[in-house]
Amino acid sequence: MNGAESLVRTLLAAGVDTCFTNPGTSELHFVAALDRVEGMRCVLCLFEGVATGAADGYARMTGRPATTLLHLGPGLGNGLANLHNARKAHTPLVNIVGEHALRHIAYDAPLTSDIEGIARPVSDWVRTAAGAATVARDGAAAVAAACSPPGGVATLVLPADTAWGEGAGVAAVAPPAPPPPVATTALAAAVQALRAPGPNLILLGGQTLREEPLRVAAGIAHATGAALMAETFNARVERGRGRPFVPRLPYPLPQALAALAPYRRIVLVGARRPVAFFAYPDRPSLLTPDGCQLVTLADVGEDCVGALRALAESLDAGPPPAERTPRPGARPPHGAIGPDVIGACLAGLLPEQAVVVDEAITTGRNFFAQTARAAPHDWLHNRGGSIGIGLPLATGAALACPQRKVVCLQADGSGMYTLQALWTQAREGLDVTTLVFANRAYAILRAELGNVGVETPGARARDLLSLDRPPLDWVALARGMGVSAVRVDNAQALWHALAGALAAPGPALIEVVL
Amino acid sequence: MNGAESLVRTLLAAGVDTCFTNPGTSELHFVAALDRVEGMRCVLCLFEGVATGAADGYARMTGRPATTLLHLGPGLGNGLANLHNARKAHTPLVNIVGEHALRHIAYDAPLTSDIEGIARPVSDWVRTAAGAATVARDGAAAVAAACSPPGGVATLVLPADTAWGEGAGVAAVAPPAPPPPVATTALAAAVQALRAPGPNLILLGGQTLREEPLRVAAGIAHATGAALMAETFNARVERGRGRPFVPRLPYPLPQALAALAPYRRIVLVGARRPVAFFAYPDRPSLLTPDGCQLVTLADVGEDCVGALRALAESLDAGPPPAERTPRPGARPPHGAIGPDVIGACLAGLLPEQAVVVDEAITTGRNFFAQTARAAPHDWLHNRGGSIGIGLPLATGAALACPQRKVVCLQADGSGMYTLQALWTQAREGLDVTTLVFANRAYAILRAELGNVGVETPGARARDLLSLDRPPLDWVALARGMGVSAVRVDNAQALWHALAGALAAPGPALIEVVL
Repeated sequence: MNGAESLVRTLLAAGVDTCFTNPGTSELHFVAALDRVEGMRCVLCLFEGVATGAADGYARMTGRPATTLLHLGPGLGNGLANLHNARKAHTPLVNIVGEHALRHIAYDAPLTSDIEGIARPVSDWVRTAAGAATVARDGAAAVAAACSPPGGVATLVLPADTAWGEGAGVAAVAPPAPPPPVATTALAAAVQALRAPGPNLILLGGQTLREEPLRVAAGIAHATGAALMAETFNARVERGRGRPFVPRLPYPLPQALAALAPYRRIVLVGARRPVAFFAYPDRPSLLTPDGCQLVTLADVGEDCVGALRALAESLDAGPPPAERTPRPGARPPHGAIGPDVIGACLAGLLPEQAVVVDEAITTGRNFFAQTARAAPHDWLHNRGGSIGIGLPLATGAALACPQRKVVCLQADGSGMYTLQALWTQAREGLDVTTLVFANRAYAILRAELGNVGVETPGARARDLLSLDRPPLDWVALARGMGVSAVRVDNAQALWHALAGALAAPGPALIEVVL
Repeated sequence: MNGAESLVRTLLAAGVDTCFTNPGTSELHFVAALDRVEGMRCVLCLFEGVATGAADGYARMTGRPATTLLHLGPGLGNGLANLHNARKAHTPLVNIVGEHALRHIAYDAPLTSDIEGIARPVSDWVRTAAGAATVARDGAAAVAAACSPPGGVATLVLPADTAWGEGAGVAAVAPPAPPPPVATTALAAAVQALRAPGPNLILLGGQTLREEPLRVAAGIAHATGAALMAETFNARVERGRGRPFVPRLPYPLPQALAALAPYRRIVLVGARRPVAFFAYPDRPSLLTPDGCQLVTLADVGEDCVGALRALAESLDAGPPPAERTPRPGARPPHGAIGPDVIGACLAGLLPEQAVVVDEAITTGRNFFAQTARAAPHDWLHNRGGSIGIGLPLATGAALACPQRKVVCLQADGSGMYTLQALWTQAREGLDVTTLVFANRAYAILRAELGNVGVETPGARARDLLSLDRPPLDWVALARGMGVSAVRVDNAQALWHALAGALAAPGPALIEVVL
């Protein structure tokens, strides 16, 4: 078998069985190897930012890395923004990036570039394969690196001759080491902090936001009087009716400062010390109040879930009391569409085990709170802040969970970054309902103008933040890529369109005109 | 004035008066400065790959750099592929990339990344502004670097506090040094080569492909019997009826080898030694025949045009004889649409001084030859090989040349990479006629499968190169972004649709179904 085939077989043996790709000439031996080897699902994306975002969504829902297959430095560059997001989410992800044959690189052909240089800022591990006989081992090392706790982006550069030359068979991938346990001193410090007079807070992140650790955390909160909060943006939260509700740290700086102001001690479990998303003139970067004690129980790469269990044991905390809260309304709201109406529709209609992908930005600022008592579901945020993640992330999540409905909450400005994902949803028949919130503006930036000290923006600044000249027709865009779509402009129409889309399988898009 | 305003005023004083942007929070002081300073045209792009490709097209047609304004590392990443292309085209281009305030970087907020690391592989010059008082000087240095012959990509990273802090006024930009003259030894070697027995070839690139130096080159060819050829992909060629026709080195490897096989000596003027675009098993990387003598008269950064003139003088070459060739037919072809029909329509209908942007890939392989006698026009290729350049390049060229019609020849697969450019064309009312060639496949890769040695691709490989499931509806996509569009599927319909679009101002798209 050639190097490409040894690499494909190695990936498969390690459980990496899904490949999001837009290949080029230098990757064709890898593509050909896919024909000779059974078991790798190949998903064509019309743009690499779709491939990398989809690989992120896939891994968040399966816990296993997908691989991308990208064309040289520029193909990797096109995927960079969503790799940045994946890395910040600690998503395990393997990039295979084609490269010219090693002997060809010195000729500086048009597509020659410094691929490792492009990869490094968004990768936790980078290697260029040195030969066909060792490329399988390189692939195994890439998977091991991606799966090393807390998960990361591993980029393997694959020169064409290492793909077409004679390979050396399948390489074994060592199972990932479990995350290291936390130090007993960290546990003792957390116990001491939570026994001290309040108000105290437990700030949760990473793996602690799944159902079982959330129950443990809720028990600790009940036993100690500490409050619970999640980081602002989280890779995956298991939530909804019957599960502990944990509010998240607000995004806007004044609200974030206010939310943390009461606390004397904050215990971090899989979360980092809270910092502002952006810097503003004369405002702090650090969100915690003066004198607040920060105690790290577990860093995101440590055994956060085990640490919570140990903490509960040390504090004699039992299970939390059952939650008794009313179900959200199951009848359509009336009137004009605004964030509250959308939130009510979501709360009432989200199906059991839905996967919610949230790139709703300003429109969706309260959706998380409004859907706290919806049917049990998962909620996926953008941890890296680079826009254009929603449609790709939903695509990957739907491939990972064919039995679950994916609901993508998509702002219009950021949706335009990677709209090509809709075509892959149509091609693969993915069960994704996308709501595009058409406020026809970069609304977040209008608010930020004031925050950075620009009190009276002029015509040119306002114009640069407006998307209404011409208005985007999302129904036409979706249909242009084979996804059925409707436009709604009142509450009842939204309710019925959403109910209809959720009841039917396959991709659908609703343009929600605000 | 603050640092942002000092930077905007410095750019304007240096003649940089057009900014292609998708800004974010960290760039808002730059955006606000645009309101206080008259004269900078700001063009909003829905994706950064559009902004960087448009800046490339703008500079190719004006000879002056535009600036981009990009949001942090991921925004730069989104623009990376077309920056790669711009760099390979030696396009002068200034990137302004926002960054967190300097004091905020250490907090590793979600959008924090190694911006300089992302910039370096696609930039000839990179700097991070160190303070508000020096940012104008940094901007001046960026413009100077971009304009240094042969032109390059300069990236200035702009921390938010260097924009909002107190600036130090406008900085002067030194006029760019002229390209250095070639060495007399190089001239003597070229003279000797062209006086030696043939067949000999002059391979042209860079600035030599404008009308005046082309006439000089044609005179040399006439006087010496040497053949003329252009590189395969060129930033800008002035051509058409009445101008010397210079064929270009073919793209496919066998044809390229055959085209160069006859020559005993090749004189390079603004061109590099010819190498294969990709490596193939058992095929050479270097395209010149064994024993062929390569003589570099002028490197692309040297005074290529002056060198041609000196060469003509040394060889006593006068002006070339007038070209006497028939005009292309001015009547519509008949029958089914194929490359020859499209080429005939272009040859017959291209208006005087059209700017042709060519990302037609396989469909357009013969368009260049077929349009040799069309009305005088400019032809722009992709020199970097990263797909997704066509629609953005056309956008920038149209902004640069409001009095000229831009004709964008766009393959469908690559068109989907940066389709958001259509919205900017609609917003700015740009005079661009786009032909999308809908073969619904990555046709070039189907051919390349055989070239790399995959003789019988299986179902999965074929599927990954097909775009027909579902077919893309380019008429819907264009209308969704405010661009009027029609679909044609026979020769007469194409002729009339093209004639109609060329006769009307503003953006239009024709989906050409193959």
